[in-house]
Amino acid sequence: MPEPGSPPARRSPPAVRALRWEGGSLVVLDQRQLPGATVHRTLGHLPEVAEAIRTLTVRGAPTIGVAAAYGMVLGQRVDGLGVDEAARLLRETRPTAHDLFVGIAEVERAWREGKDTLEAAAAYERRLVEECHAIGEAGAPLVGQGARVLTHCNAGALATVAWGTALAPIRVAFRSGRDPFVWVDETRPLLQGSRLTAWELREEGIRHAVIADNAAGYFLGRGEVDLVIVGADRITRSGDFANKVGTYEKAVLARENGVPFYVAAPWSTFDASLTRGDEIPVEERSGDEVRNFAGIATAPEGSPVRNPAFDLTPHRFVRGFITPDGVLAPEEIEERLKAQRPLHP
Amino acid sequence: MPEPGSPPARRSPPAVRALRWEGGSLVVLDQRQLPGATVHRTLGHLPEVAEAIRTLTVRGAPTIGVAAAYGMVLGQRVDGLGVDEAARLLRETRPTAHDLFVGIAEVERAWREGKDTLEAAAAYERRLVEECHAIGEAGAPLVGQGARVLTHCNAGALATVAWGTALAPIRVAFRSGRDPFVWVDETRPLLQGSRLTAWELREEGIRHAVIADNAAGYFLGRGEVDLVIVGADRITRSGDFANKVGTYEKAVLARENGVPFYVAAPWSTFDASLTRGDEIPVEERSGDEVRNFAGIATAPEGSPVRNPAFDLTPHRFVRGFITPDGVLAPEEIEERLKAQRPLHP
Repeated sequence: MPEPGSPPARRSPPAVRALRWEGGSLVVLDQRQLPGATVHRTLGHLPEVAEAIRTLTVRGAPTIGVAAAYGMVLGQRVDGLGVDEAARLLRETRPTAHDLFVGIAEVERAWREGKDTLEAAAAYERRLVEECHAIGEAGAPLVGQGARVLTHCNAGALATVAWGTALAPIRVAFRSGRDPFVWVDETRPLLQGSRLTAWELREEGIRHAVIADNAAGYFLGRGEVDLVIVGADRITRSGDFANKVGTYEKAVLARENGVPFYVAAPWSTFDASLTRGDEIPVEERSGDEVRNFAGIATAPEGSPVRNPAFDLTPHRFVRGFITPDGVLAPEEIEERLKAQRPLHP
Repeated sequence: MPEPGSPPARRSPPAVRALRWEGGSLVVLDQRQLPGATVHRTLGHLPEVAEAIRTLTVRGAPTIGVAAAYGMVLGQRVDGLGVDEAARLLRETRPTAHDLFVGIAEVERAWREGKDTLEAAAAYERRLVEECHAIGEAGAPLVGQGARVLTHCNAGALATVAWGTALAPIRVAFRSGRDPFVWVDETRPLLQGSRLTAWELREEGIRHAVIADNAAGYFLGRGEVDLVIVGADRITRSGDFANKVGTYEKAVLARENGVPFYVAAPWSTFDASLTRGDEIPVEERSGDEVRNFAGIATAPEGSPVRNPAFDLTPHRFVRGFITPDGVLAPEEIEERLKAQRPLHP
């Protein structure tokens, strides 16, 4: 862990990287095993990529978009699939994150047009990494000297290949010597906050404390949170958005306590085809994620469980969206999406 | 598990009982081991009772009040302690629940007055059990046919010797054939909801579903919660109150969604000496409760953790306090406390 006070240079990429195309395969960091073990998996076939997305071996909306883009490449070059079949197999993995469908569609287009699919996937990855760094630069001015930032889930390098969305402004502020402090919601049921976000922050030497999700309101109520920054899985043109379950709770609590709430996302997360949050499909995952931890029962055997993986936050709770092109108010999104180079679908 | 549709008689006590004075010792159900194992522990000395309270072997504000009352008896009769020393050892166990101090003081008074301490402790227990049943009768009309009730933590028989506070109105509604449904917040970090509340509801055959604490907002936002009922650890005369961390989050979310929020408590939970919530001492427990689960790391080794066990909810979020003497608005508490037979301290 670096010494406090000696942050890395402002533009040098974070040490953590979620995936990498290498030797004709997709090499991913297995996010299920962090922070206990740092295990890389080499995925050489499209169905392996689909399974890695489904099981959360790779996770985070922007990261699964890039993984799926490379999955398309494998589907074409290694598995000899047709373009429709390849796209279908990857689309069926998870329903909520918009980036997944964008990553698939970007490579699908190149494939149908007879262009180089690997170059399309690599360009998609490069664009994402650049956008996340730009999000960091755009959002860093919001993170003042010693600012105490609450975040939920993991919207760091693991979720976005590099830099992060919610964590990017914090990283840039840290590298600028502003010594931010991060309240890390542990993020039940799968603990992406305590397992992944805390790990990334520790790797980089950024001050933080892990809290039970239940404790965020307590610290907000005591005036110990200066701002909230979260990522997103899908943002409609009104600014209503889906993110990890629990995000809506933090948004309501932030407003109640007069604390500004920001959503950081690349353009692939925005879905110009939807207006209201309740149009976004919300994945409900197995109750076993809540009912057991590491094979130990945390509820009576057979007790019914409901396990929505995401929730929906209305745009009125959002002070601003931190995008690669600056911080936008919810009402600016629709116009800005029209000016944006179209991302598919 | 009883068949749905055949609830027990309205006044027959629940099958679950948190503790019992038996053969000159206090026999407690070890709540750390539920729902995996039903283990009773026999506590024959005051320091064992103090340790059981500190380690949450016995927990729940009203239950620890009764446990401490019997602890005083053991301090006098078995351990040969002085009254001051006995009271001090028990008071130092946990700072937030008011009932603890009331239970100790009720027996302390008998002791100083040369009265039978065991009779004082038993009277205190009987009064509590009667009050909780009265809470059930007072609150049951709020739980309509098929009502969907959200609760947080465990405010059931385990927390109150028998009946419960938040669960008492649900039990009485169930026994009246109104088939309620309970959303059970799992209640991190120690899972008193999924481990204890779900277990109690299952034992009684009451419909329920366990959810991650993060998901309560999602179901509130979808209109799938009709009312919220929680217990309390300490209620000031203004109605500001302390309860398990996360309660404040649910209160804010309930109001945001127009869902009534109730607090159920016996008189021993009310602290007439305090006005504002921030006068209540909030226990902060070991970070290891968040950092590990059953010995498995859930956060990077050495990551800082903050772990407040309770939070504070302002009275403006409370529709009503369900007391043994009826449902009171926050502004009625102060007057009602004056009319109440004084509980000590």
